[in-house]
Amino acid sequence: MINVTVWGENVHERTNEVVRKVYPSGMHTVIANGLSQDPDIETTTATLEQDEEHGLSEGLLDRTDVLTWWGHCAHGQVKDEIVARVKKRVLEGMGLIVLHSGHYSKIFKSLMGTTCSLCWREAGERERLWVCHPGHPIAQGLGKYFELPHTEMYGEPFAVPAPHEQIFISWFEGGEVFRSGLTYFRGNGRIFYFRPGHETYPVLYDENVQLVLRNAVKWASPAGSRWIDSCPNVPIDQAPEPITKQGEGLH
Amino acid sequence: MINVTVWGENVHERTNEVVRKVYPSGMHTVIANGLSQDPDIETTTATLEQDEEHGLSEGLLDRTDVLTWWGHCAHGQVKDEIVARVKKRVLEGMGLIVLHSGHYSKIFKSLMGTTCSLCWREAGERERLWVCHPGHPIAQGLGKYFELPHTEMYGEPFAVPAPHEQIFISWFEGGEVFRSGLTYFRGNGRIFYFRPGHETYPVLYDENVQLVLRNAVKWASPAGSRWIDSCPNVPIDQAPEPITKQGEGLH
Amino acid sequence: MINVTVWGENVHERTNEVVRKVYPSGMHTVIANGLSQDPDIETTTATLEQDEEHGLSEGLLDRTDVLTWWGHCAHGQVKDEIVARVKKRVLEGMGLIVLHSGHYSKIFKSLMGTTCSLCWREAGERERLWVCHPGHPIAQGLGKYFELPHTEMYGEPFAVPAPHEQIFISWFEGGEVFRSGLTYFRGNGRIFYFRPGHETYPVLYDENVQLVLRNAVKWASPAGSRWIDSCPNVPIDQAPEPITKQGEGLH
Amino acid sequence: MINVTVWGENVHERTNEVVRKVYPSGMHTVIANGLSQDPDIETTTATLEQDEEHGLSEGLLDRTDVLTWWGHCAHGQVKDEIVARVKKRVLEGMGLIVLHSGHYSKIFKSLMGTTCSLCWREAGERERLWVCHPGHPIAQGLGKYFELPHTEMYGEPFAVPAPHEQIFISWFEGGEVFRSGLTYFRGNGRIFYFRPGHETYPVLYDENVQLVLRNAVKWASPAGSRWIDSCPNVPIDQAPEPITKQGEGLH
Repeated sequence: MINVTVWGENVHERTNEVVRKVYPSGMHTVIANGLSQDPDIETTTATLEQDEEHGLSEGLLDRTDVLTWWGHCAHGQVKDEIVARVKKRVLEGMGLIVLHSGHYSKIFKSLMGTTCSLCWREAGERERLWVCHPGHPIAQGLGKYFELPHTEMYGEPFAVPAPHEQIFISWFEGGEVFRSGLTYFRGNGRIFYFRPGHETYPVLYDENVQLVLRNAVKWASPAGSRWIDSCPNVPIDQAPEPITKQGEGLH
Repeated sequence: MINVTVWGENVHERTNEVVRKVYPSGMHTVIANGLSQDPDIETTTATLEQDEEHGLSEGLLDRTDVLTWWGHCAHGQVKDEIVARVKKRVLEGMGLIVLHSGHYSKIFKSLMGTTCSLCWREAGERERLWVCHPGHPIAQGLGKYFELPHTEMYGEPFAVPAPHEQIFISWFEGGEVFRSGLTYFRGNGRIFYFRPGHETYPVLYDENVQLVLRNAVKWASPAGSRWIDSCPNVPIDQAPEPITKQGEGLH
Repeated sequence: MINVTVWGENVHERTNEVVRKVYPSGMHTVIANGLSQDPDIETTTATLEQDEEHGLSEGLLDRTDVLTWWGHCAHGQVKDEIVARVKKRVLEGMGLIVLHSGHYSKIFKSLMGTTCSLCWREAGERERLWVCHPGHPIAQGLGKYFELPHTEMYGEPFAVPAPHEQIFISWFEGGEVFRSGLTYFRGNGRIFYFRPGHETYPVLYDENVQLVLRNAVKWASPAGSRWIDSCPNVPIDQAPEPITKQGEGLH
Repeated sequence: MINVTVWGENVHERTNEVVRKVYPSGMHTVIANGLSQDPDIETTTATLEQDEEHGLSEGLLDRTDVLTWWGHCAHGQVKDEIVARVKKRVLEGMGLIVLHSGHYSKIFKSLMGTTCSLCWREAGERERLWVCHPGHPIAQGLGKYFELPHTEMYGEPFAVPAPHEQIFISWFEGGEVFRSGLTYFRGNGRIFYFRPGHETYPVLYDENVQLVLRNAVKWASPAGSRWIDSCPNVPIDQAPEPITKQGEGLH
């Protein structure tokens, strides 16, 4: 069983009429429902306003194998302390799936080390996501491509480090392209950035999007060991090969 | 002409008797002298205590092609505001060379997105740096390997993202190994991490170390364009292909 | 169930007295026995002299999820036609694990596109394999490192392309280092090169080596889809977007 | 001065009326003229039918810093012996730039280790090449994108290994995308695959295409050292650390 925590900002769903109509019980609920179609995935949801920890207690994160992250207008309201807590768990080995406007979340920017900027347009145009790595676990079950009839456009250059693996490239009706599915390893944690998910369109109900998310959860699930960070001194008498101290030292 | 700013923490050189004897005018001075052997390199030095900006004014950084960074005991004293300023310039295109204990500097950790931890031992043991990418510009002029008779050991696992390129692997007398020369692209900036440089040994006077640093400065020098970060909206009437707005939007 | 075919050259085991004493029933048998400790792995063995196809019939390869390859003195006797058959299956999605002197096999060189050369010494010296990617599935269950008391040394530079992932770095008693565990994707196939396995030492009986091989088989097992190679024309009337022919063409 | 050899198949230019009108003196001539606009580049041309070595003598290759390769209908006529000669030089350090239909040349497939297949359509449609790595030397002097009004389409999945660097992504009018500018290191040689260049359209006269090729020649030019391949034994008495032979050996 893979324990997934689905985190949603859940602001536009409550404050914007257009978004409420598309996602009346919140985008996190739709994401969680899509994941739950797989009997090996167990989901919990958490949202920004849930409590003082945005629903992300140390206990919950400790039990979480994979965390999915969607946010947009309230990135700045996520507490630095909670971002640090999530980051620590990713580096230990927890998987992280970042959706759409989550490219500008504190947690994603902090793990990437770059600005994560891009260009964008909200015109409801058509997007076609091409599979460029057909052997990758995240692409299994898809055809050569799948389409989303109405999306917000994200265009290159996407200011992220070169990915570990590139799985999708998007074609947009308005003429742009985008690297829409990228994987990263950071510490022991696997990260998947997936572009779709704009809140004014029913993208997260799409069957292909949901299949990708289920595949991604399995891919991002920890292999086993936790990387408990430290910067240990190896005492001279515990060196793998016998050595003696030479020269002077700081200590 | 490549403008290099050599930044040194310059604390141990003033406060520790052992270090002062090895680097009486500061490690930054020795690094700068080594770089200046190349007539195409112009160096400026800056240090932590120099002024309120640690010697790293916006004007200086703006003119800097490549910044080298050495720090150890005072990483925490580097102001976050100056770290952000340096990071912005790296993402724009300024090269960055991080030496030895700089693996734990704020700027390096922020660009990597990971803890950058490792294991270590100060025993004055022998290190042998093997070239594993002989065609790389940074390795030109070296033999198959070079040795440092007395070094502090750094051992794997090194908690950094997979590098863009791996140039050196170190062998240590006490039995460990380390990825000692790693390159990264972040935004338009090229980053080189180079392991040697412990302050209690005369490592920075070593001819091979100095050759690597000169090569690295040339490699890290900007290709040209600056990446001025923004996240621009592309208005519908400026889309590369003619489109019309469909569906509803946030705005 | 993962179907593994263990291929062994099986020449030195029959012709060299030293090797026969260490591996009386062939190295392939020892590899297969180690893999079979995992109830999810089903093994078949095949050898160079077995039949005209070196035991690698189209039917067997078609049913094989992962092929392991050990060869040394008889690389040149492997028929080009069989190498092409194996390569086709790797590109379709079959996993491939190449051991030790298999670095110079026709199949490995053909998939890498480089010479795959290295430097070497047969002195029975100690090797210590450090894990540099502790979150990787292939490294699960190991400690920080493991040792082999007597091995043939392989040293850098290893003339292979930059790997997809680097899992082990070896330290050798005689002073060299080597990238001892490397992964690659070629087409839909996953490839793992693992350095240990010299025929004059009982390396393949080592518990850590056998654990790595079991982990690697699981990692290299196909994700699902087969990449049936072609270079298809997309007729104009089947373009995803409606277009009409413009200008002149070859045909 | 960078010595560039421009190799052209030069078959369609002589046998196909459409191609002859676009490239009356051969595509290689147009490529060479574009490169020669840079005073630091010295060009030589060579073609398939030129002589028994396709114009690629050992002497010429030995003096060549970067080789550009265009071929389409006659890949099979290039002698294996000449392909091996070119490959040896690339692995030593000679740069290689492969254009358009050269994706299916023997030399490119041999260096990649994969089939290098893709999907395609000759409809004279519009292509827009987006820069996704703006800090890369090959992208200097370009805007965010450039367009080719009439091109043959190449679509994903492109059956090549994950690139060292990805510089361009193409958008096609008919709905496909393609990774149009990819770099690789093989041995000491740098390789750049660039998609544009179909023979029935005047693509190679395009100013942006020519700028990319000049940039690529500079990027691919050797850093210095030649990798003369061998697989040397390191005798026990020449090991970097003193060791003695232990256990038995093959020899």
